[in-house]
Amino acid sequence: MRKNFGAKPMLYPMPVLIIGTYGEDGTPNAMNAAWGGITEENEITICVSEDHKTTKNLLQRGAFTVSVATAAEVVAADYVGITSGNDVPDKLARAGWHTEKSAFVDAPLILELPMALECRVKSYDKETCRLVGEIVNVTADESVLGEGGKIDPQKLRPITYDPANHTYLALSTPVGRAFSDGKKLK
Amino acid sequence: MRKNFGAKPMLYPMPVLIIGTYGEDGTPNAMNAAWGGITEENEITICVSEDHKTTKNLLQRGAFTVSVATAAEVVAADYVGITSGNDVPDKLARAGWHTEKSAFVDAPLILELPMALECRVKSYDKETCRLVGEIVNVTADESVLGEGGKIDPQKLRPITYDPANHTYLALSTPVGRAFSDGKKLK
Repeated sequence: MRKNFGAKPMLYPMPVLIIGTYGEDGTPNAMNAAWGGITEENEITICVSEDHKTTKNLLQRGAFTVSVATAAEVVAADYVGITSGNDVPDKLARAGWHTEKSAFVDAPLILELPMALECRVKSYDKETCRLVGEIVNVTADESVLGEGGKIDPQKLRPITYDPANHTYLALSTPVGRAFSDGKKLK
Repeated sequence: MRKNFGAKPMLYPMPVLIIGTYGEDGTPNAMNAAWGGITEENEITICVSEDHKTTKNLLQRGAFTVSVATAAEVVAADYVGITSGNDVPDKLARAGWHTEKSAFVDAPLILELPMALECRVKSYDKETCRLVGEIVNVTADESVLGEGGKIDPQKLRPITYDPANHTYLALSTPVGRAFSDGKKLK
């Protein structure tokens, strides 16, 4: 028997995207978004409503970063999701995070989050909250790299948002190989 | 030290979306997509290029389902990603999957995948591969429900796509509470 939940924004996995921007005076800001993902070759789409400080910031600078939230930084990642940069201008600093300017776009990288996407604003539509970003570069700290210099998710420890239970879940170990396991059925 | 990977469609987590559609003759089809996610209140966006059988199908019927790929079905989930419905019309059956018609939209639910989103096509743009679907209903088999009748990801065992290592990763246990843990920093 199936249970129907109605029209709901629920999926597994959902990401925990930390959007980094600079304010007008150069203050770095960050917010937490779960509605978004890769939507094309070098493109990310995220729903950010118009009233966020982040939205004003990224439209002014034409750029933002998306850091991957990690298990090690779950408290700070949640904090920037429940606090508005309109009320607490230095919320990123209060989260205990430090930044450096991206070498690729006019937006901050958060030093405590080892992996980030550096993005240019392609388009924003306030009616649908749809922010589309061009991924200009993906960057990762050497501390989370594994074999062959690739990002190792066991070192990065990214978290995901559980929309049914409102928890953050860690990723676990590999259960299969992509573009490979399915050959057994060919 | 950071390592720069250039412009790449990489993120953690990335989903493993199994898109279910009916062909012109009613044959159920399925494909595997990793570029997509929730993009608004009741909306999912997925990149599906024009040449897929799935794309023809969903445009004809105006509907599709998105099942969450699971650890239990990783081989079949990978198989439908590496085999085209244009070449193997009964690929869903060859994956060992069975279907029933969604009660909400003109598309098949896959019985072996316990959670699915039932969607109407809102728009499709072949230039950008952008499929936007309205989520009409979220459905889950009782076997994956936990406390309070909510979906329990420990029972569902959804998988995610690791874009750096081309593996499928399982989700793990909770590492934090959303809208709650961050209060410690307020």
